Amino acid sequence: MEVISENRSFGGRQLVYSHPSNTCGCEMTFAAYLPPQAADGPVPVLWYLSGLTCTHENAMTKGGFQEHAAKHGLAVIFPDTSPRGDGVSDDEAYDLGQGAGFYVNATRNPWRTHYRMYDYIVSELRSIVMDNLPVRDRHGITGHSMGGHGAITIALRNAGLFDSLSAFAPITNPTQSDWGRKQLSAYLGDDESSWAEHDATLLLQEYGWKSDLLVDQGSGDQFLDLLKPEALADMMARRRQPGQVRMQDGYDHSYFFVNSFARDHVQWHAARLN
Amino acid sequence: MEVISENRSFGGRQLVYSHPSNTCGCEMTFAAYLPPQAADGPVPVLWYLSGLTCTHENAMTKGGFQEHAAKHGLAVIFPDTSPRGDGVSDDEAYDLGQGAGFYVNATRNPWRTHYRMYDYIVSELRSIVMDNLPVRDRHGITGHSMGGHGAITIALRNAGLFDSLSAFAPITNPTQSDWGRKQLSAYLGDDESSWAEHDATLLLQEYGWKSDLLVDQGSGDQFLDLLKPEALADMMARRRQPGQVRMQDGYDHSYFFVNSFARDHVQWHAARLN
Repeated sequence: MEVISENRSFGGRQLVYSHPSNTCGCEMTFAAYLPPQAADGPVPVLWYLSGLTCTHENAMTKGGFQEHAAKHGLAVIFPDTSPRGDGVSDDEAYDLGQGAGFYVNATRNPWRTHYRMYDYIVSELRSIVMDNLPVRDRHGITGHSMGGHGAITIALRNAGLFDSLSAFAPITNPTQSDWGRKQLSAYLGDDESSWAEHDATLLLQEYGWKSDLLVDQGSGDQFLDLLKPEALADMMARRRQPGQVRMQDGYDHSYFFVNSFARDHVQWHAARLN
Repeated sequence: MEVISENRSFGGRQLVYSHPSNTCGCEMTFAAYLPPQAADGPVPVLWYLSGLTCTHENAMTKGGFQEHAAKHGLAVIFPDTSPRGDGVSDDEAYDLGQGAGFYVNATRNPWRTHYRMYDYIVSELRSIVMDNLPVRDRHGITGHSMGGHGAITIALRNAGLFDSLSAFAPITNPTQSDWGRKQLSAYLGDDESSWAEHDATLLLQEYGWKSDLLVDQGSGDQFLDLLKPEALADMMARRRQPGQVRMQDGYDHSYFFVNSFARDHVQWHAARLN
C-alpha cells in the first residue's frame, strides 16, 4: 500500500492510497480520512461509495464529510467506483465500464476479468483497511446515486459486516431502470434472475434491514425517473422497515445536495457505531 | 447577467453568473451563495478571493463555506481570478496571465487591455452584486494565497468599503517574493514604487487596518518561503495592529486547510457584519 497524498484536515489526516488488487487485477486507489481520535486508538469506519463517473476523489474534496467525521471520531473510506488502467475494458458511455462498476462481480466478457467491485468492497478493501489503518470492527456504509445502490445492496446482503446504513439519492430499483438494466445485462448477462441480488428494493423485500435506515433524496433531482425513490419508499412502508426517506425540497443530484446533508448522515452513523 | 447554474445548498442557493465586463473587456464569471435568510431580506456579503490557477469554482465546491454562511446569514461571492477568453493575453506559466490576475490594474502591454482585476473587484463587480442580489451594504473580505493578498490589499486601500477582513495563507509581501516580483513587474513595470500599493505588509505599515484582522497559515504549507507570513506578523506586532496570525500545526496550502478553518472565518466576519 503506497501513500499517494496526505493532507491535514480538521485536526486529522486525509490520505490517498494505492495498492495492487488481486480481486480487480489492477492497481486500485482509495482515500481514507482519519479523524484526530484515531491517533489515540482505533475508531469506527464509515464507508462512502461514490456514483457514476466518480473516483475516490469527488466526495473526498466536495462531500464535506471530514468536519463531521472529526467531530464524531469516525474514519471515512472513499473507494474508487471501478477498476482502472490501460488494460481494463472500458466503454465510451459514461455509465458503463470505468467509473461505473455498479458494485457487482461481472460474469460476462469483457468485464469479468477486472470488474469485481462487489468482492473488492466487501472483502479485499475491507481487509486492507482493517489490517493497515487504526480502525475497529464497527462499520457503517453510505453512498450517493450508484454508490447509494452499492451501499444498500452490500449492507442488506452482508448484515453481519455492517452496523449502520444510509444513502443519498440511491438508485433504488435498478432492475426496473435504465440506470441498472443496461449495466446488469452487460456485467451479468440477460438472465434477470441474477440481477435481483443487486436491487435494493428487491433485497429489502427479501431480507429487510436489521436496524433503521436513512435515505435522503432531493425533490429537484434531475434523475428522479432513474433513481425511483418511490420504489424503495413503497417497500419500506410495506415491510414496516424502521427508518426514513426524506424528500428534501428543491435539492438536485449534485454534491451541493450531498454536502448539505453530510452532517446528518455522519451523526446518524456515529450514533449507531459508537 | 446570465445564470449559468443554480443548486440548492444548505437551504439556500448556490448560483453561478456570467456577465459582460466593461472593466476587463471580456465576459466574466462569478459564483454567489445566497443563504436562506436572503429570501426574507438583504444580507451582508463576504467576498472570497481565490488563489493562483483558480476560477470561481474551486472554493465554491471545495471551500466548505456554504454551511457556515447559511448558519450566519451571509452571502458569499466567489469571483474569478483573471479575465478569460481567446482574446485575452496569457502566458504558459501557471502564475502569470489567465488564472493569475493578482488583483491589480495592469499598466503594461500586453496585459493592460484586460487585466484590471483590482477595479473589477472594487467597483464593477461590487456594483453588479449590490444592484442584482439581495445584499445590503455590509462587506467582509477574505481570500486564499494570491486571494489573501488581494483581500488584504483591497481592504486596506478601501477601508470605507469593507467592514471585516481575514485571510488564509496570504502572499503577504509580494515585493520581496517570487510570488509577486514576477507578476508586479509584468503587470506594472519595473518601477518598484508602483508595487507598494499591492503589498499587504507595506500597506499595513502605511495605513493599518481599522478593525481587527484574522490570518490563518498552515505550518506545513509547501509555499511558506513565497508567502512570508513572518513579514505580516512582524508588521502587525510593530504596528500594534489588533488581530491574530494563527500558525496552524501541520496544515498545507490546499483546500483541506481552507475548509478546516472556513467555519472560524465565517464566524469572524458574521460577528463583525451582523
